[in-house]
Formats: sequence, structure tokens, C-alpha cells
Amino acid sequence: MTGLSKRDATAKTAVARANNSSGKNDDATKCKVALLGFGTVGSSVARILCERPNTHLRLTHVLNRNVARKKVDWLPSSVQWTENIDDILSSNAEVMVEVMGGLQPTEDWIRRALASGKSVVTANKQLIAHCGPELISLARQMNQQIQFGASVAGGVPVISGLHEGLAGDELFKIRGILNGTCNYILSQIETNGIPFATALREAQKLGFAEADPTEDIEGLDARAKLAILVRVGLHCNVRPESILARSISPIDSVDFEYANQLGCTIRQISWAELKIEPKADSKANELFAAVQPALVQLSSPLARVEGSQNLVVATGTYGGETVFGGHGAGGHPTAVAIVSDILAIARSKQSAVPMKKTDAGQPVEKTPTVTADFTAKHYLRFLVKDCPGIIATLATILSQCGINIDSVLQKPGCPKSHLPFLITLEECKASLVEQALQQINSLDFLVQPCLHLPIL
Amino acid sequence: MTGLSKRDATAKTAVARANNSSGKNDDATKCKVALLGFGTVGSSVARILCERPNTHLRLTHVLNRNVARKKVDWLPSSVQWTENIDDILSSNAEVMVEVMGGLQPTEDWIRRALASGKSVVTANKQLIAHCGPELISLARQMNQQIQFGASVAGGVPVISGLHEGLAGDELFKIRGILNGTCNYILSQIETNGIPFATALREAQKLGFAEADPTEDIEGLDARAKLAILVRVGLHCNVRPESILARSISPIDSVDFEYANQLGCTIRQISWAELKIEPKADSKANELFAAVQPALVQLSSPLARVEGSQNLVVATGTYGGETVFGGHGAGGHPTAVAIVSDILAIARSKQSAVPMKKTDAGQPVEKTPTVTADFTAKHYLRFLVKDCPGIIATLATILSQCGINIDSVLQKPGCPKSHLPFLITLEECKASLVEQALQQINSLDFLVQPCLHLPIL
Repeated sequence: MTGLSKRDATAKTAVARANNSSGKNDDATKCKVALLGFGTVGSSVARILCERPNTHLRLTHVLNRNVARKKVDWLPSSVQWTENIDDILSSNAEVMVEVMGGLQPTEDWIRRALASGKSVVTANKQLIAHCGPELISLARQMNQQIQFGASVAGGVPVISGLHEGLAGDELFKIRGILNGTCNYILSQIETNGIPFATALREAQKLGFAEADPTEDIEGLDARAKLAILVRVGLHCNVRPESILARSISPIDSVDFEYANQLGCTIRQISWAELKIEPKADSKANELFAAVQPALVQLSSPLARVEGSQNLVVATGTYGGETVFGGHGAGGHPTAVAIVSDILAIARSKQSAVPMKKTDAGQPVEKTPTVTADFTAKHYLRFLVKDCPGIIATLATILSQCGINIDSVLQKPGCPKSHLPFLITLEECKASLVEQALQQINSLDFLVQPCLHLPIL
Repeated sequence: MTGLSKRDATAKTAVARANNSSGKNDDATKCKVALLGFGTVGSSVARILCERPNTHLRLTHVLNRNVARKKVDWLPSSVQWTENIDDILSSNAEVMVEVMGGLQPTEDWIRRALASGKSVVTANKQLIAHCGPELISLARQMNQQIQFGASVAGGVPVISGLHEGLAGDELFKIRGILNGTCNYILSQIETNGIPFATALREAQKLGFAEADPTEDIEGLDARAKLAILVRVGLHCNVRPESILARSISPIDSVDFEYANQLGCTIRQISWAELKIEPKADSKANELFAAVQPALVQLSSPLARVEGSQNLVVATGTYGGETVFGGHGAGGHPTAVAIVSDILAIARSKQSAVPMKKTDAGQPVEKTPTVTADFTAKHYLRFLVKDCPGIIATLATILSQCGINIDSVLQKPGCPKSHLPFLITLEECKASLVEQALQQINSLDFLVQPCLHLPIL
């Protein structure tokens, strides 16, 4: 990241400034912030609050387990360190920042903070995906706010972009790369031609993947984020569990070779699309939503997302496609999103007026039926023990299901006992393909189940 | 654009809804909007206001010259059409939307609207670039707002992105493609190998360039937008005239051939970069700012901007690079930005409270020295009458100026009388290159002055 060394060099001066500026008069105009969690993100938030002049925010409390071990010397001595949530809740902090993660006791503490008249900023995607609406409603009751810009795509301001910047549009589609770990692993398989397991192991070694990578690899992390984006951008109340999540683990380097022949690459794509009913007041809308590995055209901005970067493409009826991209993770970028949220709350607190307890001006929330049965071209990659009549057998099953074959590709020079080859299908519903695959996957000549990816 | 046909199909229903919903009770909660200008953007704004349910905005007035000719039947009959600004100023409209363009009488009317207690939304980049700070200050005095999200990059929410989404960062660099006309023309020269004049003529024929293209081609449009972004993102008060603007007209198709050999393409790049002084309270900062054709690496997001798309890359000390991209022009995308701005004002008006007349919480504005003397690699393309000793002569002058040559490239098969060739320079200050070019451009063997572009 740019500027780190400069920042470190000026840290002392900044801290001195922060200490000097803790006089009483100055404090009165500053918005007081308590921080829950002093890990990577938490310490970055503290650093920005102390280093940046004129932010008009003041860090008053830091809560963490084992404070003695966590305490740092670069925070002003006025900051109170504690292991006890009651110290925060009974304090005069106006905004509580939660970067501890986890569902409990986090949810409980956030509820108590809102109930005690504090606004909340959180980076907790699982919590917001699961009980965001309840927490927002509680905040509104208490004339407070809960902001969660850091919960999706780290430093990329996509939540505020959808909620405010594109408020004038009628968004109906969101596609994105929301998980840097998967993007990194897929990029490594592509670039180095290594198997999935090797790429995962290396990512773990470098700290790009966790010891237990399930949340990332299986798409559970991305679908929590997608559920949040769907709520903010498409105004649909959707539970994360209702969104299909498919693992990236079956992707092999041979799939990148085939994808490249088709002018594509493979990425974990989070995709939600609202089919708007002609009767605009109908609540019976249908939402396609899935997180899955998919083929994307090399010309698409989604294909060019590298390493742990994130990207969101929002499509609206009026404004067409708008792209938001940047650092989806990391202490400093995530901390930028958190401090931006604190500043937004501080701006609105400045008006020193209770916000109205009304939803007027907010778009009506839809509760659509969620389905993953999208219509697309499809990529079917087989690994077979070669024998006569394979194509004929597959073609017959596909045609019986009403599916048209687009192309058949076979990489030369592969062993007959483990022969990978590819069938691409013309546009059809995913459910039709699944139906055909139920028959196909029981065929004798298959070495492993067919890999099925949509082509976007 | 997506959805146009669907929209047209549902327009009637929408209008009927808008008419039905003009009952008194409903009106009370709606924010009343007057529209100045009913051209492409103005009619798109009106369309969104009428078609979108639940926006809680109501169009009350439309002002345009020659109303009889402009009047349309798809607006509710409750909308008052007028040619007289006093009808608007004396009305109960709460927000005045200005999409007429021009500096006068627009500025005067906006001042009067603010003075009469209306907030203002404008898409007028020249006006905001020239007197934005005065208008913002007047708005603040009057407890009103002036929003200008549509003035830069059309539908791309980059103003709110910089101002709110990245408020937590300390931005120091903004690079962007802010003029769709130039981007279209350069793309056409690149793709079709045609001369600049032909590309311009075709763009004019297709409506992508104006009859008088000076503002676009010479970079004056983009530098007004850059001045606005610099103010919003870098908190520097900079007059557009202080920003270097260089024409794209000397770019020839041979330059794209050479650029490609260097792994680059050529785009009109708006670039501003703040050199932050170690003493953070120093106001004596230096700002590099220029709008000019430049070589950009093919791997850069800036190289992939197609047609009339816009893109902005903002770089911050903490969050690194963040990208905003989308439709930079056109009625509907620009209207989305305007309606988003109206909604933001409506949300803040909802709190029914005067905003505080204070700058507290706003970053301190800097007034830096503006320079275009950036350090970069440089591209020098010569067109010469071939004779012995050309390279030696050029190399001597460059070396006398303390400039190191990086490479010399010559496309084969060109006529000796009009021989294009290329010298790339190692990183050095632009002023050094200009100094060398003063000597070089008087040399006999040059058919035309050397084309000089930075390589980003």
C-alpha cells in the first residue's frame, strides 16, 4: 500500500498532535468513538483516528480481551482500555465501532449500545446479513444509526454508492467479486497451472486464506455480502441461506485452458438479478441469486479483477452499468470504510436533532421469491475413461432434456483413462442442466461428476 | 441502454400513477421539485420523477424557452410549465434543478433560488468549477444545499464516493477519463487506424462530438471536471484555468502503433496529485494537475475504458486505489445523478431542521500551488525528413538537458520524406523535456513539431 512508510514516519507527530488536541474546549465539538476489537482492522481504525488531522472524531475507549497484551504506546493516554463492555455502554461515547466479528456476544452488545443511545458502525457481514433489518429498525426507534459500509468489499464504497450515489436509479442487477481469497486462489490456478489444493495451501501459507477456508471457498462469505447488497441496492429482504452457494474447489487448471479457448476466465461471481413485474406495486417479484464459479468474458471488468481486489457492477434501468472497485480486505482499506461511516454519523449528529422515526422516502422493501434457476449458456467439463459413443450418449440425454449443444472441445494429448473434455450449451435454464446431469452423473465412463458452470 | 423498451411500455401506467398520487394528503410528505431546462437531461429527470414509484419527490414546475414547443403529454397536468424564472422563485418548490447549462443567467438564477430558501441541484460543471465555493457558501448561509453530483462523470457517483464513501481516507491522487467525446475519438483512431480529423468528423456525424468540439478536444471540459474532483476529493481550491489542458488533436494512428509496442494505449487523462508536506498543517502544498493525452499501460483500468464511458481512480494514503466507472454522459445516466442528489436533499430536509451554519467536521481546504511539472517517463514522436545524424543530434540535445533515452523505435516501411519514429525517455520532469523540445523543434529535419506525451 502507498504511503505506509511516510505514515509511520509521521506517526509520532500525529500522536503528539492528538494528545495536544485533547483539551476540553476542543473536545466538545468532537464526536466520541469507542472501539470494540483491536486486531488488524481495529488498530487501523485507531491509527486513522489519531493520525488524520481535522477529522473531528476522538477515540475514547478501546475494548479487547487481554488488554495488557494489546495495549500500544502510540494511542493518546486519554484513551481508556477495557475488557468490560459495561465500561463502553456507560460511557459518553457517541459511536461504538464493532470490529470483533462473530455473532455473539456481538449482536447482544450492539443491541445494548443502540438501546443506550449510541450509534453503531460495524464491519460484521454475517451479523448484518442475518439481522441487519432488526438492528436498523432498533436504531431508528432509538433515534440512532447503524452503519455497515465496511461489511461488503472492504474499502470500496459500494454500500453508500448503491444507497446514495445511485438512489435515483432503479437497480435490477448486481454482479460482483466479493471474496478476495477465492479470487486469489483462482488467479493462481490460472497463472501457474497448479491444482486447486496446491493453490489453497499456498494461499494459506501466505495468509490469503484461513486455516479453515470453508467460509470463503464454499461461497458462504460472499453470499452474506450479496444478501447485504441485495437489501441495499435492490431493496429485497433476502436471507443469506436462501442464496445458492457453490464451491470453487472443483475448478482445475484444465478449466482455465478451456475457458481461455472460449475467450473467458473463471471467477467466483456473486450475482443477483430482480425480475421486475410489469405491475410495479406487486411484491411477488422473483430474484435470481447465486454465488458460484462462473465463466466471464475476458473483456468484462469482472475478468480483470486481480488478487484480493473486489469489484461490483450495479445495473440500473436508467443509468446502465456502474462499476465500483478496489481493495476488498486488509486493515487499512476496511478502516477507511469504517471511518467514513463514523464521519457520516458525526455529520448527521452535528445537526443535533433527533432523526425522524419514519420510513418516508425509503423505497418499499420487497420480499421476492429467491431462485438460482438463471438462464445462461453453460459449460460442462467431463473427466472420462475414453470409450466409443460417449458424445452420442451425452448428446442424446441433453437433447431429451431439450438442451442444445453449442460446441464440443477436447484438449489434445491427455491420457485415455483421464480424458477431460468440454461441452458448451446454448442458453437454457440451469434447472434443465441439473436435470440432465442427474442422468449423466450416473454413467459408467465418468471418472468424476461433471463440472457445470454458467457462462456469463 | 437496458430497459428502455420496458420503460416505454410502462410509461403510461406510471404517468397514470403519478396523476393519481397528486392528491393533497400524499403531497404533503413529498419534496417539491422545479426543473430548469427540458432538453435531453431535463426530460430524463422528469421521466424518472414520474415513472419511479416511492421516490417521494414531486415535479411541480418546468421552465424552458418556448414552452409551447416543448410541452409533452406524459407529464401530470399538475406540473406548471413556464418561461419565467419568477414563477419558480416565488413558488413553493423546495428544490430547483438546473440543467440549462451556461454561466449566465444560470448563476444569477441559482443565487436567487438559494437566497429565496430553495436548495439547488445542478449538472453545470463550468459553473461549479468557476464559482462552486461561493455558491456552497451562500447555500450554507441560507440553510440550504447545492448538490452537483451530475457535473462530473454523469451517472457515475464519484462526487458522493469521494465526499462520503472515501471520507475516512486521505486522498492524494485522482486520475480519470472524464470526457467521453475524446475517449470515443481516440478509440476510433486506435481501432480503425484513421486520422484524427476523420475520427472527429465521424464522431460529429454520430452526435458524439459537437459542431464546435473545442471544449472537448482541447481538454477544457475535462479540466473543469478535474477542478471539481480536486476540490471534493483533495480539498484543494483550484481554478480550472490554473490546470494545464493539452489538445488530443496531434494524436495520429501511428502513435497507437508505437504505444502498443510499449504495451500501452493513449487516452485523454485528467490527473491531479497532491504532494503532501510532512508538516500536515502547512498550506503550502503543491498540486500537479493536467488534462492531456497520455500513454497508459494496457493493464491499467484507464486503458480499458471504451467509447463514451468515464472512469475515475482515486488513491488514498490508507485505502489505496478505488475505481468508479460507468456512463459519463447521456440523458438517463445524468438524470440518475440528479435524482440521487434531489433524494439526498429530501432526506436531509425530512429532518425538518436547519442545518448548522458551521464548517466543523469539514476538512480544511488547501490552496496549493498548481503545476503541471510532473515526473514521468516520456514519449517523443518525431516526424522527420530522413537524413544522416538525426538520432545523434537529438541524443546530444537530450543529454545536454540531463535527460536519459530509454528506447528508440522506428516502424519499418515509411517514406523517407515523412518518417515517424519514437524516442522514449527515462523518468524525468516534464519541464526538462519542454526545455529540450524548444531546441529540438527548431531543427531543420522536423516535418512537424515533436509530439510529447507522458507515459503513466
